Amino acid sequence: MNYAFSDRVLSLKPSAIREIFKYAADPSVVSLSAGNPSPEAFPVKEIQTITADILSRDPVTPLQYGITEGYLPLRNRLKGRLKEKYAIGSDADELIITAGAQQIMDLTAKSLCNEGDVILCEQPSFIGSLNTFRSYNVKLHGIPMERDGMDLDMLEKALKEEKNVRFIYTIPNFQNPSGLTTSMKKREGIYALAKKYGTLIVEDNPYGDLRYSGEDIPAIKTLDTDGIVIYAGSFSKVISPGLRVGYCVAPAGITAKLIVCKQGQDVHTALLPQMICNEFMEKYDFEAHLQKLRDLYSKKSAFAVRLLREHLSPKISFNDVEGGLFIWCTLPDSTDMPGFCKQAVLRKVAVVPGNAFNADEGMPSSSFRVNFSTPTNEQLERGIKILGEFSKEVL
Amino acid sequence: MNYAFSDRVLSLKPSAIREIFKYAADPSVVSLSAGNPSPEAFPVKEIQTITADILSRDPVTPLQYGITEGYLPLRNRLKGRLKEKYAIGSDADELIITAGAQQIMDLTAKSLCNEGDVILCEQPSFIGSLNTFRSYNVKLHGIPMERDGMDLDMLEKALKEEKNVRFIYTIPNFQNPSGLTTSMKKREGIYALAKKYGTLIVEDNPYGDLRYSGEDIPAIKTLDTDGIVIYAGSFSKVISPGLRVGYCVAPAGITAKLIVCKQGQDVHTALLPQMICNEFMEKYDFEAHLQKLRDLYSKKSAFAVRLLREHLSPKISFNDVEGGLFIWCTLPDSTDMPGFCKQAVLRKVAVVPGNAFNADEGMPSSSFRVNFSTPTNEQLERGIKILGEFSKEVL
Repeated sequence: MNYAFSDRVLSLKPSAIREIFKYAADPSVVSLSAGNPSPEAFPVKEIQTITADILSRDPVTPLQYGITEGYLPLRNRLKGRLKEKYAIGSDADELIITAGAQQIMDLTAKSLCNEGDVILCEQPSFIGSLNTFRSYNVKLHGIPMERDGMDLDMLEKALKEEKNVRFIYTIPNFQNPSGLTTSMKKREGIYALAKKYGTLIVEDNPYGDLRYSGEDIPAIKTLDTDGIVIYAGSFSKVISPGLRVGYCVAPAGITAKLIVCKQGQDVHTALLPQMICNEFMEKYDFEAHLQKLRDLYSKKSAFAVRLLREHLSPKISFNDVEGGLFIWCTLPDSTDMPGFCKQAVLRKVAVVPGNAFNADEGMPSSSFRVNFSTPTNEQLERGIKILGEFSKEVL
Repeated sequence: MNYAFSDRVLSLKPSAIREIFKYAADPSVVSLSAGNPSPEAFPVKEIQTITADILSRDPVTPLQYGITEGYLPLRNRLKGRLKEKYAIGSDADELIITAGAQQIMDLTAKSLCNEGDVILCEQPSFIGSLNTFRSYNVKLHGIPMERDGMDLDMLEKALKEEKNVRFIYTIPNFQNPSGLTTSMKKREGIYALAKKYGTLIVEDNPYGDLRYSGEDIPAIKTLDTDGIVIYAGSFSKVISPGLRVGYCVAPAGITAKLIVCKQGQDVHTALLPQMICNEFMEKYDFEAHLQKLRDLYSKKSAFAVRLLREHLSPKISFNDVEGGLFIWCTLPDSTDMPGFCKQAVLRKVAVVPGNAFNADEGMPSSSFRVNFSTPTNEQLERGIKILGEFSKEVL
């Protein structure tokens, strides 16, 4: 039987990069294509202790229905932490718990965008968010990334020319996939432009706590005296992604709508995972835990960068890793990137072609993304060697 | 600041019954207005043992990212159980795990309905599903319920007259709110009409395992030789709602679209809850557990029915409870039901006015819903006594 689907879902085209992921599932392939935390990063012993404690002390709360806004002790703890440590959140804001930051992208697009409305995104940007936005049949308009964030002239041009721009989507810290960080000056510029043109900003910050060198830069949300920034945070990269716990700080008028939509999606985020995140921050030294993660990933990234320097064709350039989980490798302009990555996976190493991260996947890209958090050091060594040999052959 | 929301969210009106729920939050009010399982129903000791075991045996799996379709051992176990015990699921179907059955309603509406399309629902029906459908700006067309299910003449009339009917939404067992069960003859009739008019059926079955008297009736999904039934199941009423684990059995062409939308909503359902449900069914006697729940709720429902018989005005009628969690009480036609329930909550007992469950909340209703699973016996006694005195005064 042929099923008639909604227009918004019809517009979701099968991705050209699916083929590469299909090959990457082969266990003989070294996958540098994921974005998973390292299994070593999970605080396993602490979660064992916490979970046993929750289930023996108060078993009914995690098993019964909860409220859509989230587990109150976790919301209060996060509000306090975000305000004290990052100056995020004002009296006009509310904080809600979501099923990872991914759900914030969905709820935001659903609440704010009619079909055909425009979202301005960094180009390249996180494919998971772009696909969510696409599932509401919006138009994605990519703004090219410079070394210090979006090209503000191009951003203003888009804000002038596009009708019904509903928000600017940005990942200001160690962006997925490019690894780039938006400078304070550009953060101020983005905020000023959003204000000038009456649009909102969705600031997605999954990697902010994973800085390995340099100084932290305040979130765009810290500038938000006008109530125009929706801030998305997540425990996926700093405690566990399998728990699916994220949080959103946004003007209360907006979170109220997100909550109506969330109630329809899942009633509330599973409670045991929310309680685990809360108790982990309560009972253990969260800052020390973050420092452990930074130490772990800093070493892994240095190891990967050293291998890339040693093995890759000198025609491929990449930046030092300041934070996050990715290295963005750029080839001479003329390369057929999906073809390059498909050939690489046939040689048993999987990386993601940059096209996948464009507002329009059909647009050319001369970069590929390497992840260093998921593979073991042995896998990094093997994978990058293959990639190196292959790149020297074809370039 | 005034925020511009999408048309679909604008259409979500604040509910007239919110005021009653606001009063019901007062701890001095006896709430017969919820739909939570009894805390006694949770298999606490088993979940303690299972969870400790999962986290010590294989801690990385529940903490790492999983696949959107769900935890494979749980999917396989459910496929087997549904096929063997209920004859649900064919080779053309796929089973996916969701964040409760609520998410199935959201994914289904999102995938199948354009704004303005029509969903035919039982009248009354579950407010959570109706609100989800509303959030996609669809038109809800209510089909009056008879003692044995939807009025099939009215269903056919609606199928003839409405354009772009995308599916028929039904809760065939111990429906929320009416408690009614659709007869086999009517299940066949609904299926035949859906087939005749080329529409789909969403069969929502959260209470099917909670039958306290009479014989089980096969699901509409067992008739599905044409690939037109989307079946929604849930652990919320039989293990725990706080875990947020549901499952959907539907033609693979449909689940593929639901999965694309789910990926954008939450990537996947939290893994620890999925693994808990799986291990509970693997390690313990699930049928014996269900029998324990039936014994518990059968007693609670008999207790509530006896109190209602004893105390309520004789002008109020209600059915015996065959299963599920609700008793539907019907007053003489002329009653102002929201007014009645508001007066009741001021007397310290909360029940839900039937209007809340109509396709159009503005339509009159002469019924209210009583829940007997959440309150303790002492609360049932106190709440129903107040309700009885009040009903005798005003009727």
